[in-house]
Amino acid sequence: MNQRMKKLQVWMKQNDIELCFLTSSENIFYLSGFYSNPHERLLALAVFQEDEPFLLCPAMEKGEAKKSGWTDEIIGYSDIDHPWELIQKAINKRCNTITKAAIEKEHLNVERYEQLSALFPKAVFLSVEEKLRTLRMIKDAKELKTIEEACALADYAVEVGVHELKEGKTELEILSAIEFALKKKGVTEMSFATMVLTGANAASPHGTPGLTKIQKGDFVLFDLGVVVDRYCSDITRTVAFGEIGEKQKELYDTVLKAQLAAIEASKPGKSAAEVDLTARRMISEAGYAEFFPHRLGHGLGISVHEYPSITETNNLKLEEGMVFTIEPGIYVPEVAGVRIEDDVYITENGVRVLTHYPKELQIIR
Amino acid sequence: MNQRMKKLQVWMKQNDIELCFLTSSENIFYLSGFYSNPHERLLALAVFQEDEPFLLCPAMEKGEAKKSGWTDEIIGYSDIDHPWELIQKAINKRCNTITKAAIEKEHLNVERYEQLSALFPKAVFLSVEEKLRTLRMIKDAKELKTIEEACALADYAVEVGVHELKEGKTELEILSAIEFALKKKGVTEMSFATMVLTGANAASPHGTPGLTKIQKGDFVLFDLGVVVDRYCSDITRTVAFGEIGEKQKELYDTVLKAQLAAIEASKPGKSAAEVDLTARRMISEAGYAEFFPHRLGHGLGISVHEYPSITETNNLKLEEGMVFTIEPGIYVPEVAGVRIEDDVYITENGVRVLTHYPKELQIIR
Repeated sequence: MNQRMKKLQVWMKQNDIELCFLTSSENIFYLSGFYSNPHERLLALAVFQEDEPFLLCPAMEKGEAKKSGWTDEIIGYSDIDHPWELIQKAINKRCNTITKAAIEKEHLNVERYEQLSALFPKAVFLSVEEKLRTLRMIKDAKELKTIEEACALADYAVEVGVHELKEGKTELEILSAIEFALKKKGVTEMSFATMVLTGANAASPHGTPGLTKIQKGDFVLFDLGVVVDRYCSDITRTVAFGEIGEKQKELYDTVLKAQLAAIEASKPGKSAAEVDLTARRMISEAGYAEFFPHRLGHGLGISVHEYPSITETNNLKLEEGMVFTIEPGIYVPEVAGVRIEDDVYITENGVRVLTHYPKELQIIR
Repeated sequence: MNQRMKKLQVWMKQNDIELCFLTSSENIFYLSGFYSNPHERLLALAVFQEDEPFLLCPAMEKGEAKKSGWTDEIIGYSDIDHPWELIQKAINKRCNTITKAAIEKEHLNVERYEQLSALFPKAVFLSVEEKLRTLRMIKDAKELKTIEEACALADYAVEVGVHELKEGKTELEILSAIEFALKKKGVTEMSFATMVLTGANAASPHGTPGLTKIQKGDFVLFDLGVVVDRYCSDITRTVAFGEIGEKQKELYDTVLKAQLAAIEASKPGKSAAEVDLTARRMISEAGYAEFFPHRLGHGLGISVHEYPSITETNNLKLEEGMVFTIEPGIYVPEVAGVRIEDDVYITENGVRVLTHYPKELQIIR
């Protein structure tokens, strides 16, 4: 039994929960090491206080589940089996009655919830999600190493994008060149839809890349991430294409200073709110408060958005092992948008920045 | 009120359902014309038997919702609002009590279901999904036109891929070239992860593109689709790279004949099963029954897999307006895999093929 599973079992005992029934690919991967996207088919992991857990998956994925290192029971079902009958049998073999169970209420759908609760009509169902978010928030050495690999590829991706910049090329052309270069390195998944935005398009925090062309005097914003062994990276860089005006330079300097100050403020014992406010105050003092409309950052790992959330109201204290983004931005509609984002890791007594692409203002000629 | 909404209201009256509460982006788009991926935020459409429906969305999307042509009420909520309170008020304004409501049980999660059912503790909740799948199955003229545009781009994508074939190139390089060419035409979304598979990789119906190189004497299989205005296309072509053996040619011929026969068999009044079995019997008679392990096809539209499902057990009669794939395949492990897939539309008295890339065996030299 791995450490993660043991921690979950301790929580189950403390809360008198006899069964955790998990269905999301991410949490199942975190606990079992087996990742699968089952599409519309059912994938489930059942965990008990003492008894052997079991994994339920489509029969054709049983081999993959074994290869992933899972040594406890695997129940495969074919298209003519009734998975809920198999689940009932497997649970009843371990537990006479279920009075309290934990599920992922934000993931499990009503159809499956009705199936599950019909099997255990006396059971009360709690949510296990908050517990798993808290467990996943603290990364171990292997997770950190994987995220660092994903960050190195994100650095490379920005490098490719900056090299590709040329007057008249479209955002989508630059974007394709980046993803092509990554595919040549064997990358098969991005953390989210890659963003290459320029001009007025970059002046919104929610732009979509399109056929807008790179023009002299505009910023180009890259926001992207690479998935390595199921872990995500996330980086943003903004570069100037040709000479830019004083106002644009001032925006850039303000964001960069705020970003560096927030990194400096990140260490064990500080709260997420203190880190957010370090950057937010600097941006406010420069007169851009209303143009920084989002939180400073978010945790990342198996999901590209996870705990901790770096907001001005989150009093959670930072701890060694947390990984999150620091990404202040200023977006002045119709003028320009600048965002600078790094991924950071909280160490025993400070912070380590995991993304390394340069941040001083680059003017591409 | 549009025709789709009216049909849903007729069904609601027949079944004494006072409220349909929809939450999936696809069904909301189908009924309202407004598409949004709200990520973790709540998006909902409430439909009543007689009263004005309403759309609930994040405040920042209200403008988009209006632009999409929705003329009934739109309730926007900010991050500090309580959307469930707004929902309760808006429903109570229209309906004194809800005793029977319909939801998407395969989409709505338990957390939201608990919120909704707490508002209406006396309500019974049915599923609306089967009804919407049936409505969405019959395409109107505008939907057909959009799917045809998506099909034309899929044809083009295969053409690009075939032109890119060269000894030593990897599957991922070919794939990137295809997606790059599409992006230059403004395509921003594929129906699913594009597949370019060769050699042993193509000999499985579930291969993943990687660093395998194109080699003389191998088949190369392309399976891809393009999204246009939220509608999907889906095409598969298999071509030979250099001279191939007699066994491979026989596989190709068998699949092609089965595919053509199944298209020929597709017309109003025939059942989905008859169409599937037309192809399946031919493949069985050639001795490959066990190597054709999947259904013949699936409906497509806003989702890449929707109704009708073309299986050997589905007795649903084909009707004018249905759009589905016909995609027989033979996969002989370690030898070769061939699949040929077209999208077809059932006309008043026959069938129209929507994908046009050539299907006779091509040997690329």
